[in-house]
Amino acid sequence: MKRFFLVLTVLVVGAHPAFAQEPIEMQPASETSRLLFDTLLSLSAGLMAMVVIVGLCAREAGLVRAKNAVASCTKMITLTAICSLAAWVAGYNLIFSVEPGGFLGDFVVWSVPENETDERASAAQFLQVALASAIGMAIVSGAVAERIRFWPFAIFAAAYSALIFPIAASWIWGNGYLAAAWKYSDFAGAALIHGCGGWAALAGAVILGPRLARYDGEEPREQPPSNVGLAAVGGLLIWVSLLALSAGAHLSFSSAADAVAISRILVNSQLAAAGGVFAALVLTEIIYKRVDLPILINGAVGALVAISAGPIEPALWQAVTIGAFSGVIVTVTGPLLDRFRIDDAVGAIPTHLVCALWGALIVPWSNESATYLGQIAGAVVIGAFSLTMGILFWTGLRYTVGLRVTAERELAGLDSRPEASPRPRL
Amino acid sequence: MKRFFLVLTVLVVGAHPAFAQEPIEMQPASETSRLLFDTLLSLSAGLMAMVVIVGLCAREAGLVRAKNAVASCTKMITLTAICSLAAWVAGYNLIFSVEPGGFLGDFVVWSVPENETDERASAAQFLQVALASAIGMAIVSGAVAERIRFWPFAIFAAAYSALIFPIAASWIWGNGYLAAAWKYSDFAGAALIHGCGGWAALAGAVILGPRLARYDGEEPREQPPSNVGLAAVGGLLIWVSLLALSAGAHLSFSSAADAVAISRILVNSQLAAAGGVFAALVLTEIIYKRVDLPILINGAVGALVAISAGPIEPALWQAVTIGAFSGVIVTVTGPLLDRFRIDDAVGAIPTHLVCALWGALIVPWSNESATYLGQIAGAVVIGAFSLTMGILFWTGLRYTVGLRVTAERELAGLDSRPEASPRPRL
Amino acid sequence: MKRFFLVLTVLVVGAHPAFAQEPIEMQPASETSRLLFDTLLSLSAGLMAMVVIVGLCAREAGLVRAKNAVASCTKMITLTAICSLAAWVAGYNLIFSVEPGGFLGDFVVWSVPENETDERASAAQFLQVALASAIGMAIVSGAVAERIRFWPFAIFAAAYSALIFPIAASWIWGNGYLAAAWKYSDFAGAALIHGCGGWAALAGAVILGPRLARYDGEEPREQPPSNVGLAAVGGLLIWVSLLALSAGAHLSFSSAADAVAISRILVNSQLAAAGGVFAALVLTEIIYKRVDLPILINGAVGALVAISAGPIEPALWQAVTIGAFSGVIVTVTGPLLDRFRIDDAVGAIPTHLVCALWGALIVPWSNESATYLGQIAGAVVIGAFSLTMGILFWTGLRYTVGLRVTAERELAGLDSRPEASPRPRL
Repeated sequence: MKRFFLVLTVLVVGAHPAFAQEPIEMQPASETSRLLFDTLLSLSAGLMAMVVIVGLCAREAGLVRAKNAVASCTKMITLTAICSLAAWVAGYNLIFSVEPGGFLGDFVVWSVPENETDERASAAQFLQVALASAIGMAIVSGAVAERIRFWPFAIFAAAYSALIFPIAASWIWGNGYLAAAWKYSDFAGAALIHGCGGWAALAGAVILGPRLARYDGEEPREQPPSNVGLAAVGGLLIWVSLLALSAGAHLSFSSAADAVAISRILVNSQLAAAGGVFAALVLTEIIYKRVDLPILINGAVGALVAISAGPIEPALWQAVTIGAFSGVIVTVTGPLLDRFRIDDAVGAIPTHLVCALWGALIVPWSNESATYLGQIAGAVVIGAFSLTMGILFWTGLRYTVGLRVTAERELAGLDSRPEASPRPRL
Repeated sequence: MKRFFLVLTVLVVGAHPAFAQEPIEMQPASETSRLLFDTLLSLSAGLMAMVVIVGLCAREAGLVRAKNAVASCTKMITLTAICSLAAWVAGYNLIFSVEPGGFLGDFVVWSVPENETDERASAAQFLQVALASAIGMAIVSGAVAERIRFWPFAIFAAAYSALIFPIAASWIWGNGYLAAAWKYSDFAGAALIHGCGGWAALAGAVILGPRLARYDGEEPREQPPSNVGLAAVGGLLIWVSLLALSAGAHLSFSSAADAVAISRILVNSQLAAAGGVFAALVLTEIIYKRVDLPILINGAVGALVAISAGPIEPALWQAVTIGAFSGVIVTVTGPLLDRFRIDDAVGAIPTHLVCALWGALIVPWSNESATYLGQIAGAVVIGAFSLTMGILFWTGLRYTVGLRVTAERELAGLDSRPEASPRPRL
Repeated sequence: MKRFFLVLTVLVVGAHPAFAQEPIEMQPASETSRLLFDTLLSLSAGLMAMVVIVGLCAREAGLVRAKNAVASCTKMITLTAICSLAAWVAGYNLIFSVEPGGFLGDFVVWSVPENETDERASAAQFLQVALASAIGMAIVSGAVAERIRFWPFAIFAAAYSALIFPIAASWIWGNGYLAAAWKYSDFAGAALIHGCGGWAALAGAVILGPRLARYDGEEPREQPPSNVGLAAVGGLLIWVSLLALSAGAHLSFSSAADAVAISRILVNSQLAAAGGVFAALVLTEIIYKRVDLPILINGAVGALVAISAGPIEPALWQAVTIGAFSGVIVTVTGPLLDRFRIDDAVGAIPTHLVCALWGALIVPWSNESATYLGQIAGAVVIGAFSLTMGILFWTGLRYTVGLRVTAERELAGLDSRPEASPRPRL
């Protein structure tokens, strides 16, 4: 009987040209297949989030001076570990135990649920939470590079991933305040992951102060990068993994509509990244009469960050536009920060923070279910919270354990060895 | 009733030893599952095409001299962006709007189809087109490295990805001339992607002329690579991503037969790559009494390019042979080009162009549906077109904007900064 | 009717709190879908095994001295090729033709089975076998780096991948002696892949002797790494690919239970890696008053090796503990080896061999089906065999073709060019 009506529908509707393109109802995937497809998407996204960190490590190691590259990589490996442990000890539960519309979840160690279906979903979420806070801290790492002491950075990473990021995330991902009160729309968590990390990075860069001799002359002094090839490879790795991460943020890959949505995410994100590089290219040529590789890299990354706030709805030309404006942002915001003597060693603040804000604010342009007011509210609330917390923790660390290496150490390079400590025998 | 016959079939047929191995008809996947599996394959292949570019960037950055590494990476990021934008502005539609057997499609901006099923397929194709032309341009980039000016290269990238490659691709992928008239068989587009790029690279290398001082002595002067570790990592990344890309070229992953085909593709490709490295290893030891890492890398890549023209049909020993001969090609073609003073900075022409031709021509050895005549016709048509177009555009650029940096700039390195232009403040 | 009972079951059972969490029986995936999901898992794992080799290449190239980086990468590309060819020529059949409980399979060239279903499974296994032996040889490569001659290494790679590893693997994967007699449990083959490679590495490092001038003073002389940024990127690539490889070792991804198991594998492995880094961090700070990047990298890798022996059963805190102890191992075993003047250029023996043993021995802590006796038996049998074979082959090579470069060559660096051999014209 059902089949009869289906055939009838096809015959009647299919004959009418306006409906001819309507997809015929598809035989759905079985429950188990749907579960497996969804699992595949979320676990693959977890692995791709690790690749983002590989890329961010390569970018920072390549862009800092040769005398500080080891210190940068050490921070990067350490923060990946600390953020994973902190998500287990506190972060995960802070996010998902918050009451609807609430502000603060419970402080307990996450334990795997006994129900198998819940366990699977919970495990995938755990990886995403752990690595989202690691990506945020990797942004901080770039901004404070070449002058910060190791242990204060490690302590901040613990605070960030156990407290700052999870509390902010609980307001959105945990259905807390922002999700309930403002219908704040941020598809892949641009203003959350990159915003929260970016504000903490800004607080750190300001409180830590600029690198020595950076602003001695009229122009900021150049700091020759250690290995631009590595940085470019890192930038391309971030490019491909952020594409995958935005796709993963769709969470579901178990229907024909999901397949379409994820295709759209990838195409829009790719075109946005291309637009970001192109705009940065043209603009640096116009302003500086030359092309600058780190700005191109950040143009691509910034565009991917911006589009990730809403990658499904924009038309192709809108995606290119959103990306292109991100390219403009990374080109002009860097010198602006320099004017305020805010020293960001790898351009992390323009690329991640400013582009995330731009991306979140522009969502309503193509997505009718979002409002400009809601987006501004979300950006302000997350920003105010993470900036305040960043200032608190960085200041606290500054006046207790101290934040900055000695001037001698900074001049010699963070990788230089103090006399007293021989290298452990590996 | 159906089940009854099935049981009967198994009982009767299963008892007969000759039929015992016949696969029993499998319960097929649902329509939605098939769609999702196919989407997964094509979108993953799109992401892996980006990884090919990561690898090609690492290879070029590692093989050029340290004074030119930034320029190489800048080209690489730029061409990825330009090829993506050009595929949107013209390339995609040029390919898929061509009439069956025709020569030229329509010049219109690609817009996403409104029908959701078409949209998904179209989006996946868009990524593949964009990145196939980017891979082609990355081949060009390697051949003309260390002496080309940035903007002429960027203009050529636009011409290549908006015109040259799409028109050639339309004759095969768009069911145009070659597909219709010659039954030309090129599974993963070896002679298209690597051939078209390779001919454009050859035209560029010849018109641009060799690097300064390269052919001053009797032997071509060595140009010490900047970072062979990075080049090797790049080579291995190309290896793994070309494996995946050939698998993705099967387009369909929704039946047991697809699973078998893709398994075969991966095994044959892996053995071909191994054969390529091994042959290059033995041959360089015999001829030069030493082993040469860049030739080994190119042996693997060249073998993967060659086998990608027909990776399903060859028996294992045929795959090894096809790969091994590619290893011979990359070892002997480089010195041959040097004899004609054609200077190819990273060995892109032997690796990509010559191995692609070899791969396309050898398809009929194992694939009965292909003919040697058809393969030669395809290689000649694509080659004549892309070489002609390459000569036209490179010559045009040479006599208008100019192609080559000044001798002082080349000696100082492309990454040296002209006095007048301070580095933008990042 | 079935639906009626289902609804009834939900109503009745769902009302009882103790049963409320029980998963309702799911509609299973179709046969073809199950086949496709399983194929996807095993082929993806094959590709990720190539990424492990990318990471190991980057780690070794980055940790050896600049004058030996090319030689290290050359070994790495070569061993990937040789292990793939050897798995085809002998390795695959040695493993899977062994009789149940037996010691030695047949020496014949592997040919693809004609039955399509078998062909698919066999192809996936072939990739895994080829790359498992390549990972083992990459461990050897690291330990003997900076002083070994190229061709003896290549010959050893052939022996390892055609004989040593497959015979040991046949006792477990081929259902041979260890699987039959001892119920030896090693989920992802930690003590097999990393153990067998590690013992061969130990034999090689001892027979080859330490690098020149390494143990001249009281403390082992430092050998400044060529590019720590590349090594760190390599370490993170190993991290993400070992996560995927452990997931792939589950072999099946076609039911809800599989989805849960793979989620658990990823979470436990990530937490173990984090624990490994953290423990190494704290311990190096306590002992040496500083943090050491190569030890952190090896802490992560060692923990992933250890947990891979049994990644499903441990509770989260057990996974962290297993990982943390691996971090302790990599920190203290290196200096211990130095005391015996066993010189391991990249710390491969502590990271891979000792952590693999630790991981295999601790399996019964969380997995009731394994016994400490069985695990010790497995470790001893594999160890005794691969160490003996390693000693035999290395000694044989030493007294025939010779193992070590000349002292002049070693001091000048393996990448230095002997006068007589000009670089081939690429």
